Amino acid sequence: MTPRKDLLDIASLTDEEIEFVLANAGPFKDLFKRTVKKVPTLKGKSVLTLFYEPSTRTRSSFEVAASRLSADVIGFDIESSSVVKGESVLDTVETLESMKVDYIIVRHKKSGTPNLIAQNTRASVINAGDGWHAHPTQALLDAFTLREKFKDLRGARVLIVGDIQHSRVARSTSLILRRLGMNVAYLSPGSMMPREIPQEIAQFGNWDDALAWRPDVVYLLRVQSERMDEPFFPSAAEYHRNYGLTDARVDIIRERGLWLMHPGPVNRGVEITDRGMNYEKSLINQQVENGIAVRMSVLYWLKPGAEG
Amino acid sequence: MTPRKDLLDIASLTDEEIEFVLANAGPFKDLFKRTVKKVPTLKGKSVLTLFYEPSTRTRSSFEVAASRLSADVIGFDIESSSVVKGESVLDTVETLESMKVDYIIVRHKKSGTPNLIAQNTRASVINAGDGWHAHPTQALLDAFTLREKFKDLRGARVLIVGDIQHSRVARSTSLILRRLGMNVAYLSPGSMMPREIPQEIAQFGNWDDALAWRPDVVYLLRVQSERMDEPFFPSAAEYHRNYGLTDARVDIIRERGLWLMHPGPVNRGVEITDRGMNYEKSLINQQVENGIAVRMSVLYWLKPGAEG
Amino acid sequence: MTPRKDLLDIASLTDEEIEFVLANAGPFKDLFKRTVKKVPTLKGKSVLTLFYEPSTRTRSSFEVAASRLSADVIGFDIESSSVVKGESVLDTVETLESMKVDYIIVRHKKSGTPNLIAQNTRASVINAGDGWHAHPTQALLDAFTLREKFKDLRGARVLIVGDIQHSRVARSTSLILRRLGMNVAYLSPGSMMPREIPQEIAQFGNWDDALAWRPDVVYLLRVQSERMDEPFFPSAAEYHRNYGLTDARVDIIRERGLWLMHPGPVNRGVEITDRGMNYEKSLINQQVENGIAVRMSVLYWLKPGAEG
Repeated sequence: MTPRKDLLDIASLTDEEIEFVLANAGPFKDLFKRTVKKVPTLKGKSVLTLFYEPSTRTRSSFEVAASRLSADVIGFDIESSSVVKGESVLDTVETLESMKVDYIIVRHKKSGTPNLIAQNTRASVINAGDGWHAHPTQALLDAFTLREKFKDLRGARVLIVGDIQHSRVARSTSLILRRLGMNVAYLSPGSMMPREIPQEIAQFGNWDDALAWRPDVVYLLRVQSERMDEPFFPSAAEYHRNYGLTDARVDIIRERGLWLMHPGPVNRGVEITDRGMNYEKSLINQQVENGIAVRMSVLYWLKPGAEG
Repeated sequence: MTPRKDLLDIASLTDEEIEFVLANAGPFKDLFKRTVKKVPTLKGKSVLTLFYEPSTRTRSSFEVAASRLSADVIGFDIESSSVVKGESVLDTVETLESMKVDYIIVRHKKSGTPNLIAQNTRASVINAGDGWHAHPTQALLDAFTLREKFKDLRGARVLIVGDIQHSRVARSTSLILRRLGMNVAYLSPGSMMPREIPQEIAQFGNWDDALAWRPDVVYLLRVQSERMDEPFFPSAAEYHRNYGLTDARVDIIRERGLWLMHPGPVNRGVEITDRGMNYEKSLINQQVENGIAVRMSVLYWLKPGAEG
Repeated sequence: MTPRKDLLDIASLTDEEIEFVLANAGPFKDLFKRTVKKVPTLKGKSVLTLFYEPSTRTRSSFEVAASRLSADVIGFDIESSSVVKGESVLDTVETLESMKVDYIIVRHKKSGTPNLIAQNTRASVINAGDGWHAHPTQALLDAFTLREKFKDLRGARVLIVGDIQHSRVARSTSLILRRLGMNVAYLSPGSMMPREIPQEIAQFGNWDDALAWRPDVVYLLRVQSERMDEPFFPSAAEYHRNYGLTDARVDIIRERGLWLMHPGPVNRGVEITDRGMNYEKSLINQQVENGIAVRMSVLYWLKPGAEG
């Protein structure tokens, strides 16, 4: 396996690399049962979090992962930073490059920013979400989570529900699960369905049709609250009624024993009801726990300074 | 002594537990005289600070305490967090629980939030102040500070001055000091005196009467500046004149050799004058120093995952 | 060499101390080529960053430096701090002093604040920039960077360009370079030239005259964007035309082989063009890298608790 510097998206990963990350996340997760959940793997390495969009959950997940590998974590607080003073992303990267940090975890609202950064630093860059483009560690943790439940992902069926068009989670998770042999379908309002969709992905406009497709897993996307203020966006109540997991739909998925996933944080009453949150086959919390193990595995795998 | 998971308030502690925390804070404080002020006690453990209200002093005190025990400290910045996106406290706690952090230090404006959190996580929860309810580490550090000065607290007299009604410090500190055998009195404007007060606590409405009670210690509460904007709240000048430690009153307590305490940060010219801040028997700075030792002792004592 | 507690400005340093810091920065910089860039020098020490003005670059530089020395870094977030509640700087310092932190890195918009803090704590205080007064670690890193390029700084010529009057960088860097034997000249709009300038510093009002002085190094100061909103301040375009490093001027300094420096972050199109940023003899990135090594050297040199 050629050493890899960056994790920017799922598309550029080889099957072997995906396998490597998923296989190693297991032993890292086993650590969490121990009193001391820490290993010295990255002792003396610096991990810098560069978040241009707020996200306590994802950032903290990376911080916990890095500290469990004994790395030093430096937070680059964008609110109080040079960005305010108008410094460009690339100038910031030159600064970080000169500081000789080893890993840069980046989130940015503009697609492609992590790629741009990666081309300009010897540090390993991990995309923690860029615009509508990609969120590869989310995809990897989703895949890991499902592999814990299915002996073989091949042929299993996942229904992804929500605003597919604007979701980097949908894009990355859908891609990795198909590569692992799953069948993927989308349930989405027409206005939120991407125009070009790979032929093998089934598309549905309502729950009845989607459930008739017989999914094994229901994956609810988060409704971006900022989008709820847009004029043509359905109201929260309307979204819930038509595309949310209402109590009636919770009963159906319970009856059928389907797995339930969501990348978090949930909007209760929009994507899901309180009853849905208590559903016994929800994997939402396991996604969070696995997120740390998978991110440890990614940090362990990447090699700062490697070619491309 | 049964292992304890959380520190939520003083009321639920046994005498033995209070004794344990106070007794162990001493050796931790002794560390501060050494060049290396650190011990490996919590190596590999994660301490997460979850502050819904700003407080650099208390949060930093916990951070210093945790790092002197070699724990990893993760700050959960609430401003830039999912809270902004509307995530509920309990959903946040589920996330933290899944991350397998070991200790959660929480401050929240709503009384009872730390209890709610504690019931929903295996992590040890430490209440760093919740509404008007409790601030148990403040109470423990106050008790520790007074025990350094009094051979025996039994029978010693402390006068607590200020807005008793809205003060979690008054509530927790008053309780622990009475349990350790001190006599407690309150000096407060009528509108800030709680309606129901334990019979053994003397109540005063002016300094003359309060000083006639012969206190050994004067404990000034902080005036919450946000309260000073309320319509029926006395002005800062009026509060100072009637309930503050004016220069004249500094002279009186100096003459009598009384100890002076304040939980910080002080509003100079409101609770206390500049001359009061320089009073030689002020324990304010010792409260800060002891705060770190006591918080180390609390972290050392609590057992994540213990029953209730 | 007498042990020194604080680094407040360049003026109070002895030649021997400057030499000590610069000489030790070299070995610290050599560390950065190693896989593990860390040494245990400050293990168990606490470094607190107290920034009253935002500065991600300088603060992160200190954080990386401190963590490479194995210190614990505590961020004191001023936005969410007691400062908001109106606590004075000195009361904050008393708190930090009681917490027994070992090093305080301070930035404040008011000149002299670090000195005031230093007088009130046993901790070592490092001035990370105070008003128009001083920025001594910037000066030290600038000197270190030039010493890497010049066998002997004596007689070499540096032209400092921009708003000299309001620049703590100009003040500190100019001072250290003159002490190391360099000749210094200023190029500045008349309104930004200080009234009193040491006689040995040449003053110029335009690039032609300044370049005729035959500098070896051109040091561009940052234009404070907040100043650009002031009524009598030249527009960004006007500043660029008259005092910026335009493409034409890049060609001139390239032809002459001059070194180029800037403390960062740059305002592209104001102090410098894109072409200028790509100039092969720019030392801007080396300034950043050296900044960490020099700050490690400063932390290594200072002795918390030493006299004065």
